Amino acid sequence: MKFIRDSLHGNLQINEFEVKLIDTPQIQRLRRIKQLGFTYLVYPGANHTRFEHSIGTMYLASRLSYGLKLPDEQRQILRVCALLHDAGHGPFSHVSEAVLKQSHEELTSKLIRESEISTILSEKYDPEEIISLIRGEGSLGQIISGDLDVDRMDYLLRDSYYTGVAYGVIDVERLIHNMKLEDNLILKSKGVQAAESMLLARYFMYPSVYQHHTTRIINSMFRRCLKQLFKEGHIDPENIYKYDDADIISIARYQEGLIGDIIHRLDNRKLFKTVYSLKLDELTNPGAIFKIEPKQIQQYEIQIAEELGVPEDYVIVDVPDYPSFDEMKTLVSSNGDLVNLSKISTIVSTLRDARFNHADLCVYLPEEYSNLAKDVSFNQLIDNPE
Amino acid sequence: MKFIRDSLHGNLQINEFEVKLIDTPQIQRLRRIKQLGFTYLVYPGANHTRFEHSIGTMYLASRLSYGLKLPDEQRQILRVCALLHDAGHGPFSHVSEAVLKQSHEELTSKLIRESEISTILSEKYDPEEIISLIRGEGSLGQIISGDLDVDRMDYLLRDSYYTGVAYGVIDVERLIHNMKLEDNLILKSKGVQAAESMLLARYFMYPSVYQHHTTRIINSMFRRCLKQLFKEGHIDPENIYKYDDADIISIARYQEGLIGDIIHRLDNRKLFKTVYSLKLDELTNPGAIFKIEPKQIQQYEIQIAEELGVPEDYVIVDVPDYPSFDEMKTLVSSNGDLVNLSKISTIVSTLRDARFNHADLCVYLPEEYSNLAKDVSFNQLIDNPE
Amino acid sequence: MKFIRDSLHGNLQINEFEVKLIDTPQIQRLRRIKQLGFTYLVYPGANHTRFEHSIGTMYLASRLSYGLKLPDEQRQILRVCALLHDAGHGPFSHVSEAVLKQSHEELTSKLIRESEISTILSEKYDPEEIISLIRGEGSLGQIISGDLDVDRMDYLLRDSYYTGVAYGVIDVERLIHNMKLEDNLILKSKGVQAAESMLLARYFMYPSVYQHHTTRIINSMFRRCLKQLFKEGHIDPENIYKYDDADIISIARYQEGLIGDIIHRLDNRKLFKTVYSLKLDELTNPGAIFKIEPKQIQQYEIQIAEELGVPEDYVIVDVPDYPSFDEMKTLVSSNGDLVNLSKISTIVSTLRDARFNHADLCVYLPEEYSNLAKDVSFNQLIDNPE
Amino acid sequence: MKFIRDSLHGNLQINEFEVKLIDTPQIQRLRRIKQLGFTYLVYPGANHTRFEHSIGTMYLASRLSYGLKLPDEQRQILRVCALLHDAGHGPFSHVSEAVLKQSHEELTSKLIRESEISTILSEKYDPEEIISLIRGEGSLGQIISGDLDVDRMDYLLRDSYYTGVAYGVIDVERLIHNMKLEDNLILKSKGVQAAESMLLARYFMYPSVYQHHTTRIINSMFRRCLKQLFKEGHIDPENIYKYDDADIISIARYQEGLIGDIIHRLDNRKLFKTVYSLKLDELTNPGAIFKIEPKQIQQYEIQIAEELGVPEDYVIVDVPDYPSFDEMKTLVSSNGDLVNLSKISTIVSTLRDARFNHADLCVYLPEEYSNLAKDVSFNQLIDNPE
Repeated sequence: MKFIRDSLHGNLQINEFEVKLIDTPQIQRLRRIKQLGFTYLVYPGANHTRFEHSIGTMYLASRLSYGLKLPDEQRQILRVCALLHDAGHGPFSHVSEAVLKQSHEELTSKLIRESEISTILSEKYDPEEIISLIRGEGSLGQIISGDLDVDRMDYLLRDSYYTGVAYGVIDVERLIHNMKLEDNLILKSKGVQAAESMLLARYFMYPSVYQHHTTRIINSMFRRCLKQLFKEGHIDPENIYKYDDADIISIARYQEGLIGDIIHRLDNRKLFKTVYSLKLDELTNPGAIFKIEPKQIQQYEIQIAEELGVPEDYVIVDVPDYPSFDEMKTLVSSNGDLVNLSKISTIVSTLRDARFNHADLCVYLPEEYSNLAKDVSFNQLIDNPE
Repeated sequence: MKFIRDSLHGNLQINEFEVKLIDTPQIQRLRRIKQLGFTYLVYPGANHTRFEHSIGTMYLASRLSYGLKLPDEQRQILRVCALLHDAGHGPFSHVSEAVLKQSHEELTSKLIRESEISTILSEKYDPEEIISLIRGEGSLGQIISGDLDVDRMDYLLRDSYYTGVAYGVIDVERLIHNMKLEDNLILKSKGVQAAESMLLARYFMYPSVYQHHTTRIINSMFRRCLKQLFKEGHIDPENIYKYDDADIISIARYQEGLIGDIIHRLDNRKLFKTVYSLKLDELTNPGAIFKIEPKQIQQYEIQIAEELGVPEDYVIVDVPDYPSFDEMKTLVSSNGDLVNLSKISTIVSTLRDARFNHADLCVYLPEEYSNLAKDVSFNQLIDNPE
Repeated sequence: MKFIRDSLHGNLQINEFEVKLIDTPQIQRLRRIKQLGFTYLVYPGANHTRFEHSIGTMYLASRLSYGLKLPDEQRQILRVCALLHDAGHGPFSHVSEAVLKQSHEELTSKLIRESEISTILSEKYDPEEIISLIRGEGSLGQIISGDLDVDRMDYLLRDSYYTGVAYGVIDVERLIHNMKLEDNLILKSKGVQAAESMLLARYFMYPSVYQHHTTRIINSMFRRCLKQLFKEGHIDPENIYKYDDADIISIARYQEGLIGDIIHRLDNRKLFKTVYSLKLDELTNPGAIFKIEPKQIQQYEIQIAEELGVPEDYVIVDVPDYPSFDEMKTLVSSNGDLVNLSKISTIVSTLRDARFNHADLCVYLPEEYSNLAKDVSFNQLIDNPE
Repeated sequence: MKFIRDSLHGNLQINEFEVKLIDTPQIQRLRRIKQLGFTYLVYPGANHTRFEHSIGTMYLASRLSYGLKLPDEQRQILRVCALLHDAGHGPFSHVSEAVLKQSHEELTSKLIRESEISTILSEKYDPEEIISLIRGEGSLGQIISGDLDVDRMDYLLRDSYYTGVAYGVIDVERLIHNMKLEDNLILKSKGVQAAESMLLARYFMYPSVYQHHTTRIINSMFRRCLKQLFKEGHIDPENIYKYDDADIISIARYQEGLIGDIIHRLDNRKLFKTVYSLKLDELTNPGAIFKIEPKQIQQYEIQIAEELGVPEDYVIVDVPDYPSFDEMKTLVSSNGDLVNLSKISTIVSTLRDARFNHADLCVYLPEEYSNLAKDVSFNQLIDNPE
């Protein structure tokens, strides 16, 4: 038995088998991957890592297992899944994900199969079973990756703790005490309010943290840099899950041209400025904004670059992330029936729409060019997407 | 006016002049310097940075200034000093300091003088005045660097918050409300208990965090690596305050030999093992242990290497840091007289001695060699220092 | 200068004039009035008092004054108003209010005018000015009693702290930093989210705490007891603001009959049971439920008593409190215009309706009679209100 | 299964048998007994009750049982003991205890034997076994009442939370993970630091809270009042554990003379003033101060009353409580041996002496008489005790 002290959940007990997994280079690497990417440039305390989050999720998997009165073996396997669920994340977590062809879930599967983790797992489990649970398959899998899973319970609490933004405080205890496992992971009707509060936490964290305006600029800058690193062959996107944050940063610092220039701006927090913003309510079809093709975005960038006489590489058109709210699909047992959470909660059905309020399409330019944008009619350069 | 959200102290107000200083590359670099070096390998939440600590210290400088009813200009200048006080820290903070010829205070002075910070300061202040205050000169300077300064108030609270170790919780309010500024920064007798609790916080943080046994091993490994980086010319020790954590790590990763090997062990948490430990109470002159010359230590290492038949570079003899407790010299006003805190507090005078309890001299070896040490009589290889 | 240590806001500074007010029997009495009445029978930590809340509100009045950059005198007067704003509360706060003819605001005015508080106030202020501010008159008054006032900021935080229900955590700092005082207290558009989160806090606290089902039963029982105490002449409702919680309880304990019986049940937590509940969505006109006349309610009770053959005094028909949400009327400055918060926030306009979700009309009976209610058709005894 | 929400420990699970015990009038009464007596007049948040403390102690008994890997039945019985351990407390907890002939432990035994609690217990246990465990007999008993028991873990944390005094924060987790149960409850040497920190918490809570100077005055005043209530026959000391706080207060309010006068002063916080204080270090035999006989104290009071021409009932000579520190006797396993904590911890052995620092003998008088004491030589009226 070993203990790890978590700043959120306290002293967490780890058994020998888990220690073996934690001691692999693959899990140790997570200590060097920031949970919220570059958010620390906006919230200076947001330096927490995928490692602590993985350990914390493992702990919540235990607590939910106890709450559901699962047999010991099921609890054990869920702990292992929680520990491994983010192992495939690239540097700076979700920031890099956007420019990769594979999701971090796919990369996690790949990493487990290819690495010594698979060998260790085989002592007790079929690695494919672990992978399938991590993917959220089956009712057990929903505990790890479902509409109301331990992953997001941990990250909402953790992101709140480190950013200092109070919104993410959720009532984990009440949630856990009001769930049951049947064909699906189901919320009892007494837990509806706790689930509402969790959705609200996410709703508020979006504009405050996850899609904070400055964070979006920084992420866009970094992605441009990362794409170029791929293009010039400095980093192999297929192996992105072998790099840590420091690797990418330092490789970039050694480059000239676009890469070196952008990383230098990030290092010194000389950020691009927003020169145009298209709000959702100005659109005939708001949903369309999330589906604009990369090619189309690039086309916008070229048009703007030409109009302004600015290098194409320095024009960024940024489309907001689609704010998914899978929690609203949570199954609730209400008088014997199973219904979707959004059906029985006015709050939740409101959030389904309200979450788009803060989304907008933005154009960023380096400060030195931002003056050029003053008299430009962006509406003519960017077609209203449909 | 701008606000920075600090996870500890909340929304902190920053004025325009301070924003200018914060926006320099020198202060931005602090976002990438971990406050507690490699402690995150022991406490996974300890990823906080010198940047947040500097902002937090600035805030406490304000609060203490209000408590002391200082005029506005003095408060303003103290805020600036607090913001800059750690600007010269090398990567991984104190870990690198031990292998440098200059202290981080000296490097801070140098950095202020040489960089654009000096130019900005000159708009309102004499940079030399700022440097002198940061050095703790004069009664005002004691607020920044004294026996009971805002620097250590912030770091005790902050290190507690991020490690999850409760000991560092101190009663900042009671301290601040019980100080006055005369020829010196003086504690009123009503504040003795709050000061005692602060000393105790430090006393408990030593073995739990700052001198945690595993942390000492990791720091020793990293220092060996860093020394070699200097020796082989990969990094210029004179300019150490221009590097950030990622720079050092990535430069080291590209090296072969000792450097690459040690950084690889650190990355994968394959730590050296303790093969011998000499407790203070086995010594005829306990204090001597803190004064062993580097040459002498190297001599021990050579002897051990020879005896065991192990490469010299892989033997580490680690002498504990001297646990300074300047707080005990704090001046307390007691019935009109000024006396040292340790004079009127039994607790404090006890801690003066007790703080050495956990100090010991240790010998570390890579795990693969640690078996060789089993039958060795270290007492003959390491003379009892006097 | 004196300090009071508040468990929520820390060491709070109190000036001499304020100490004089605090030392009056009228304000000291608030130490013995529970903030949440009998809620401690549901949440055992909810023993906090109107006294701490008054001190805490005074502190928030200061903070908001600083945020609004009000002149010192205005801050001083607001502090005094905040300190006094709840002085007229009867025992168990809002629980007794429901059976009185005057609101606690009216009683506060009366108490200030009649007591030595008026004399003390006259040293510096016109007592009528204080009364008018407490009533929320003028733009300054809105700070004390308005759509988004310091009173509810304090009680939401405080009620959360003592009940252990996380929902009440609001982002006071962001709220305060985003308000301005013009003809009205106005929210800047950047503060909309913080205001949304405050409304949500209240929304969630309603069913969890303020209108918790068990609390409603207890309050109904106590009110029946109190009404009888008035009726039998044991307590003078005109002077209700001179009694504290212990007075009422102990006077009741000495009585025979209904009063003694009910207080005995409360003491031993032998609570009435709910035998019928009419949900809002079963009503043709949901809003009507909040407007049922006391006479009508009594009529229902008589009918039920007769039908069941139970003493009339032991039948309680309980109509829910109207969940007011004045915050939605908060004025927000948006692109130069002033609009209501509910206009620009989808969340807020949703809550306007959703807040009724948990309201229902209930019938309570002592446990020993509850079986009798099994086969009764309450729908015929209680007309659907219109 | 039922849940009780504790503001400190969160949602606590209670089984059916425990619910039966909780629902007795004897345990319900604890909801109306303040944990810290009149401390709320000094720290306005200190309104917490013996009830929450009992529930919290029950929870910690569970956690320690899990930590010690005790069988389920032992955990169950310990929970019951923790729940009942304070049932015999008189109103205002320890304040009344000082004027009773029996300790609250003795009264608890009596109450269990005489009340329905005994009947309920008999369903599963021998009530005498429960009583014996509550008294700390046997190694299991030490968990409830020993040198390092769950009772004081809970009260230190709880008193900190409600007073807002940070000192009581202790590292419960580390303590619990470092204990083992052999013939005695034993601390592993790794837990020494956590135990040190707990002792320090108590050391700091003494002068700040438990023996706060104002609290001592208030308690002395109340005890005088209570003694008179006994003397005049208004309250039966033998049945003190049947009264709650409100009972005593309201009975006192109805009395004329000394009783009514003192309770009126307490209600309005018109406190006695300290007119003389004899510090321990002025004594030839400091320890003697704790052993002065009640008769002797009364003699002092008579002499002072005569000298000042003041009614004897209004002179209070207050001897400090003996600050017991049983924790220092905690057995620690150190290299196979069992030694007392104070033997191996310098800190602890220091505290053994330092805890007396703040103790002094005081004389209190009503404010209106305090002027008379100015020229009196108390040293001649109060012999230096030996």
